[in-house]
Amino acid sequence: MPMANFLSENQEQFERDLFELLSIASVSADGEFAPHVRQAATWVAEHLAGLGLSVETIETDGNPIIYAESPPVPGKPVALVYGHYDVQPPDPLADWISPPFEPTVRDGAVYARGATDDKGQMLTHVKAAQALLAEQGELPLQIKFVIEGEEEVGSGALSRILPEYKEKLACDVIIVSDMPQFGPGQPAITYALRGIAVYELRLTGPKQDLHSGSFGGSVTNPAVALCRLMASLVDAEGRIQIPGFYDDVKSLSETERIALGALPFDQRSYLEQLGVEEAHGERGYSTLERRWARPSLDINGLTSGYQKEGSKTIVPSTATAKFSFRLVPNQDPAKIGFALRTHLAENCLPGVKMELVEHHTSSAVLADTGSDYITAAVAAIEKGFGKSPVLIREGGSVPIVAEMAQTLDAGVLMLGWGLPDDNTHSPNEKFCLADYHRAIKASAALYRELGKLQK
Amino acid sequence: MPMANFLSENQEQFERDLFELLSIASVSADGEFAPHVRQAATWVAEHLAGLGLSVETIETDGNPIIYAESPPVPGKPVALVYGHYDVQPPDPLADWISPPFEPTVRDGAVYARGATDDKGQMLTHVKAAQALLAEQGELPLQIKFVIEGEEEVGSGALSRILPEYKEKLACDVIIVSDMPQFGPGQPAITYALRGIAVYELRLTGPKQDLHSGSFGGSVTNPAVALCRLMASLVDAEGRIQIPGFYDDVKSLSETERIALGALPFDQRSYLEQLGVEEAHGERGYSTLERRWARPSLDINGLTSGYQKEGSKTIVPSTATAKFSFRLVPNQDPAKIGFALRTHLAENCLPGVKMELVEHHTSSAVLADTGSDYITAAVAAIEKGFGKSPVLIREGGSVPIVAEMAQTLDAGVLMLGWGLPDDNTHSPNEKFCLADYHRAIKASAALYRELGKLQK
Repeated sequence: MPMANFLSENQEQFERDLFELLSIASVSADGEFAPHVRQAATWVAEHLAGLGLSVETIETDGNPIIYAESPPVPGKPVALVYGHYDVQPPDPLADWISPPFEPTVRDGAVYARGATDDKGQMLTHVKAAQALLAEQGELPLQIKFVIEGEEEVGSGALSRILPEYKEKLACDVIIVSDMPQFGPGQPAITYALRGIAVYELRLTGPKQDLHSGSFGGSVTNPAVALCRLMASLVDAEGRIQIPGFYDDVKSLSETERIALGALPFDQRSYLEQLGVEEAHGERGYSTLERRWARPSLDINGLTSGYQKEGSKTIVPSTATAKFSFRLVPNQDPAKIGFALRTHLAENCLPGVKMELVEHHTSSAVLADTGSDYITAAVAAIEKGFGKSPVLIREGGSVPIVAEMAQTLDAGVLMLGWGLPDDNTHSPNEKFCLADYHRAIKASAALYRELGKLQK
Repeated sequence: MPMANFLSENQEQFERDLFELLSIASVSADGEFAPHVRQAATWVAEHLAGLGLSVETIETDGNPIIYAESPPVPGKPVALVYGHYDVQPPDPLADWISPPFEPTVRDGAVYARGATDDKGQMLTHVKAAQALLAEQGELPLQIKFVIEGEEEVGSGALSRILPEYKEKLACDVIIVSDMPQFGPGQPAITYALRGIAVYELRLTGPKQDLHSGSFGGSVTNPAVALCRLMASLVDAEGRIQIPGFYDDVKSLSETERIALGALPFDQRSYLEQLGVEEAHGERGYSTLERRWARPSLDINGLTSGYQKEGSKTIVPSTATAKFSFRLVPNQDPAKIGFALRTHLAENCLPGVKMELVEHHTSSAVLADTGSDYITAAVAAIEKGFGKSPVLIREGGSVPIVAEMAQTLDAGVLMLGWGLPDDNTHSPNEKFCLADYHRAIKASAALYRELGKLQK
């Protein structure tokens, strides 16, 4: 059957498949959800096997990694599709209009945790393979799927098995769709990602909460010490104050700054969408530059003492901050971690014990914008979306991508199918269903374009 | 029956009565506990009525206030016993060895929320009246009991009815037991309390949590803004940085500093008891001076973003700090509040909305150490405890005491029956049962001593 017909006839089935996967609460950050994580892995494995691909469930010391491959096509490049079946925690639950694991369609988009990040985007490449196989019984190049279950917590298992699976995963280009388009109606190819370094700082003062009247003023309050430490990390513009932090930062070229400046970015509607009255950040940089090409620090969570209604006048025993840096090309997470630890140790108040936990880190990614793969992707996106993509960066991180590209010595194609207002990592995450279908078409076209390249 | 016999024969009954009151979860800070608060009020009213006193339950717009009085005794002073039947929230629940509202005796102390603050201490004065009435059928002076249910949340209702009840509550001296002795075996009379001002600062940034990769660096993070604001309030020694904060502070006299310095305070065991390695606070002051006579700031709670296991890389939508100042004599809470608000407004980062809620405030208390009431209390404590009390200050606040003393134009006798390690406001709050009985004896002796004074 011609592919165009197959795609249009199977739209409803493709959506049903997506909704089925979205209804599995595969939250990797919280051990409580482990059975659902396993269920999502099984779903992906069975789905890939259903296409006639050779599938392997790679058991790890963490969550399983689903590997699938089509037969080799001599003389053609090998493409590896990377995606993940795990999702962010759905908190705060009360803010969801429909429950996070009951996919619900509103205004042409499906709302569910993982809709855009990354179940919906990942599935487009599976469905594209299904469509090509339905049309011609084979794929124009060998495709390898690596769908993991720990992306939201640092891809530890995949990272650990990577050396052992280096031969099996060998490829020429890695295809990743885990980012947004530039905007509605404007697809994009992302040529850079920021890196990340995620920490948790725990301060412990008195062995239990104390009456702040009887004791206040005579012992260090861990929450005060925590606020002072966190405040010491950034200035009022968010410029990071850790000595040496900016030493290795690769600056934007003038050409890039001009290209980014030419993008039709509407700051006013950006701020309106976020519900923020005023843009604020590092002086001398535009909002897009701050988001995509400058390092940043965010506190992700604060916990200390009494958090319920009313007041409780205590010196809390402990105070914790979860925080993360976004890094840019050339910054080394290990070096940043060392500098951070030194800075915190030097600035912590006496009378509290400090513990710094490193959750996960990753370098930034910077792709070669002149490669044949980019050219193929431009053509494919034009076919799928009816519009040429712009070249953009992205502020988010897909930590494993940098590592895979390096270990496998492969190029990277980052093709975002989401939208900037998809509420990734937030309540009411969504994915536009029209884009889901356009992306399936684009992905199928990409396989064809890549199949034209000689290897 | 001679009082000594009555007291020794009724020890078990007095303990059973205390345990009964302690088993009522009368937490005033959290509306969920409202039925228990009402139950505790009823218990107190019925108990006082059982002594033959005239009892009135004063209904208010908040929790009821229990008022009881014995008949007037012409020519003798009138004493008003102030206490409260409400308690602090029991959180964190997991840290309690026995459940907070199941009074449990270990090593001669009863463990329960409210054991020392203030159910146990308050009840000593009720039991003393009961003992005297059993012995002689009447009290040597008129005693008025005012037992309220909002002390832990600022005594709003009592404060509001005070002008209306001024005549009814008229008295010469207010007796309060809601503080510790100096230490085990060393009773004390407290001649000063710190004041308090309790706030909640809420910052709101983006309308919902955002992905810190896609957006981090381009918008103000409310948790970062909160840490910066809280850090701006104090220097590394805890000296408050709000302009004008120390303007009205009444300094310790040289005589007082010498007297405080002469108290047998063992800083090492103090720190050991708290589980803190190092004393830390305002330079130039001893630990006792910092606790009792210098203002302080404590953060009581921090809440923002993701607080569960693992990490979630977001820009949180909101961040909240609960915090409180302890004030010293002559500082005006209204003036402090105004200076605080100004300071916060001037130092808040752009891009977040700020809301400051004032929970409750109170001035400090400073009693006349040369009064006849203090002389009477010294004699009474010697009788009850077999040891002379020392004169001390206390860092905690009993906000309503300053207001009652001023409105009723009465002296204040603050007689602490608790111990410094009673875990007031903390898990495993306790009250020594031997001190409970000694304090009942001392209170009965105090009524007698006060009954010797001419009016």
